[in-house]
Amino acid sequence: MNAEFIFVGTEILLGNILNTNAQFLSEQCAALGISCYYQTVVGDNKDRITKTFLQAWDRSDIVIFSGGLGPTEDDLTKETVAEALDLPMVMDKKAMDSIREFFARRGLEMPPINEKQAYVPQGSKVLYNANGTAPGIICEKDGKMAILLPGPGNELMPMFENDVRPYLSSKSDTVIVSKMVKMCGIGESAVDARIRDLTEESSNPTVAPYAKTGEVHVRVTAKAPTEKEASKLIKPVVRELKNRFGPYIYTTEEDVTLEKACVDLLISNHLTVSTVESCTGGLVAGRLINVPGVSEVLKLCYVTYSNKAKRKMLGIKKAILEKHTAVSRQVCEDMLKGAAFINKADVVLAVTGLAGPDGGTEEIPVGTVFIGCSVKGKITVEKYNFSGNRSKIRENAVAYSLVLLRRCVLEYFSEVTFGSEGQ
Amino acid sequence: MNAEFIFVGTEILLGNILNTNAQFLSEQCAALGISCYYQTVVGDNKDRITKTFLQAWDRSDIVIFSGGLGPTEDDLTKETVAEALDLPMVMDKKAMDSIREFFARRGLEMPPINEKQAYVPQGSKVLYNANGTAPGIICEKDGKMAILLPGPGNELMPMFENDVRPYLSSKSDTVIVSKMVKMCGIGESAVDARIRDLTEESSNPTVAPYAKTGEVHVRVTAKAPTEKEASKLIKPVVRELKNRFGPYIYTTEEDVTLEKACVDLLISNHLTVSTVESCTGGLVAGRLINVPGVSEVLKLCYVTYSNKAKRKMLGIKKAILEKHTAVSRQVCEDMLKGAAFINKADVVLAVTGLAGPDGGTEEIPVGTVFIGCSVKGKITVEKYNFSGNRSKIRENAVAYSLVLLRRCVLEYFSEVTFGSEGQ
Repeated sequence: MNAEFIFVGTEILLGNILNTNAQFLSEQCAALGISCYYQTVVGDNKDRITKTFLQAWDRSDIVIFSGGLGPTEDDLTKETVAEALDLPMVMDKKAMDSIREFFARRGLEMPPINEKQAYVPQGSKVLYNANGTAPGIICEKDGKMAILLPGPGNELMPMFENDVRPYLSSKSDTVIVSKMVKMCGIGESAVDARIRDLTEESSNPTVAPYAKTGEVHVRVTAKAPTEKEASKLIKPVVRELKNRFGPYIYTTEEDVTLEKACVDLLISNHLTVSTVESCTGGLVAGRLINVPGVSEVLKLCYVTYSNKAKRKMLGIKKAILEKHTAVSRQVCEDMLKGAAFINKADVVLAVTGLAGPDGGTEEIPVGTVFIGCSVKGKITVEKYNFSGNRSKIRENAVAYSLVLLRRCVLEYFSEVTFGSEGQ
Repeated sequence: MNAEFIFVGTEILLGNILNTNAQFLSEQCAALGISCYYQTVVGDNKDRITKTFLQAWDRSDIVIFSGGLGPTEDDLTKETVAEALDLPMVMDKKAMDSIREFFARRGLEMPPINEKQAYVPQGSKVLYNANGTAPGIICEKDGKMAILLPGPGNELMPMFENDVRPYLSSKSDTVIVSKMVKMCGIGESAVDARIRDLTEESSNPTVAPYAKTGEVHVRVTAKAPTEKEASKLIKPVVRELKNRFGPYIYTTEEDVTLEKACVDLLISNHLTVSTVESCTGGLVAGRLINVPGVSEVLKLCYVTYSNKAKRKMLGIKKAILEKHTAVSRQVCEDMLKGAAFINKADVVLAVTGLAGPDGGTEEIPVGTVFIGCSVKGKITVEKYNFSGNRSKIRENAVAYSLVLLRRCVLEYFSEVTFGSEGQ
């Protein structure tokens, strides 16, 4: 089966929004074993949507739309597809009720304009939207499928996961099973080099690496007539990856993020944690707080951006700051010690660096970041040189802080040792 | 003139990377007054690249490619376009030198495989690449243009800004001038309703609103034979927007962000600032620290996620937390008072809320957030009900914290009053 995506919205063509749905749908379809050869973005224009749809309908088995399902006159996707497939529009009572309910939950009456959203092409499967007013739609005709999804990511993504994915799986005579092996603390090229035999030679399961900031994910995907057989194909490859990469792998679960793995590691070792941040200014704490259960272990955290804050809060001496500057191994160490002392946290993460754009020198160029982690008093400080602009440098610093936290806790408690495969 | 974009790369179709070039090129072309009706993503496949290119060449004046200019056999863009336009490939000596130099600067010899990158379609304009090995290419034929740019954003973006933008401007007999009017503290629908006459009736300049989290941006764009004339067309519309929206407008400068406007406001009023965050966990501080000059005013900031941290750091009484719960007006106020007292900051921002996914009740549903701002002891606390998932709720809370900071400082110092246009 092959699919193609059509993203409808003048706001995408104008660069108003970043099309994150494209990456999401691409990754989802790849994981389902559905090939995708084309993606098109088209504006809110009936003629152009029709042309784009007919071309896609002609050359692909599945056409997935995102956007253009809103209540206004500019929202044309549903009507255009229905007309192209020669299907009349009919009112779906359950959709109407669900839209009314959406407003009622907010103490509002449904505005008349939203009635339009309850109309669907005759015979289509309706996907009720828990997070918005536009229902999704699946039309089948001539052995092909048109799948219409709402544009906002927080509506499209859960709808895909809850309704579209099971539906597409059920349509296929083969079952796709896929497993994501997520690693950190090892560079993309080191991973690439060590799995080239797997990525190049194996076609079922396929093995594909995905680089993320501070992480490398490797997806293993197998097709087979049954789930059991597909899982059986995957198992030895995942085992082989575990042999090759050992402690660099932090999870093989799809929905476990690096911060979740860190928080789970802290919880299972009964460790409290605190952060003290300079250039990342709260973003490390912010990522830990992505994990709903973090309150169990997270102690007070600090943002000590100025030298004054470092001195006042952490008791770092003026002479040390003047001699070494704030971006130094010494100050990073003192940040750890200061926070550990006042906060009595088992684990402390400290970040101090130069995110730029100004202030770089020969010795301390922009992108220099010291990240430190203290586990029960055992201190590790690493120096990094990140490239990119201010926000890219900070994003890297945040990711590598989590990588370091994980490494230090594992080394302390599990006597695991990590090689020097680079970051 | 109209343009269309073709993004070449199987890694985009697999969801391996987020296509940020798309948003960049879209925004750049919109600012140049170039209309864009289609964007297509296609894999590294000669037949499909050819078909996509010929369709685009047929219906558009300018076709801009991103990707497929690398040294490997999979990189096909240049050869495919040359063949489709019936242009022979010739070696460009300056490109060859520049690639050799790229390697030499890194102490390396140029690998033979990279020689391929110095070949260009005959007669094309070559854009030398300071940040990578692939030169960009502009081919003109039959009054149309094909512009081939490298895929990595850190190569494409400077090449567009330095070479392509001036080239496209020179091709146009009109000059485009555009101004972004950025507002906060007023809702998208309120802005839409109050500028409908401008968006619907005016075609030169055009007026277009863009909704961002917590903000609304309105772009005013005019075309004229000279820059002076275009600027003259824009001026009265910007003035009119200023009349209509007054204090809601925080800047008319393209590169000024909301956090920059907040920091500038603090600096110009000689105010120090501190944050104390619960559910946003450092992200408000993180956004203020986006602004390079913030160290002048930013005092120590805290992340007090747990009740224990709130009690310890801010002296909030256990009885208060038990009676009102952490997500309450009372606790938000106490967070402000606690932080102002220990920190002696002129301005304090405090955020406490329930980002979910669990823990919601009838009285305090998920999405309830209290944001407080104290300016020289004058306290304002607002209650918000944000929708979406955990990360969306937190993103909203961060944005509205900045909006509240700006409003409170302006109300205190400038006796400006804001209406109740909603957020």
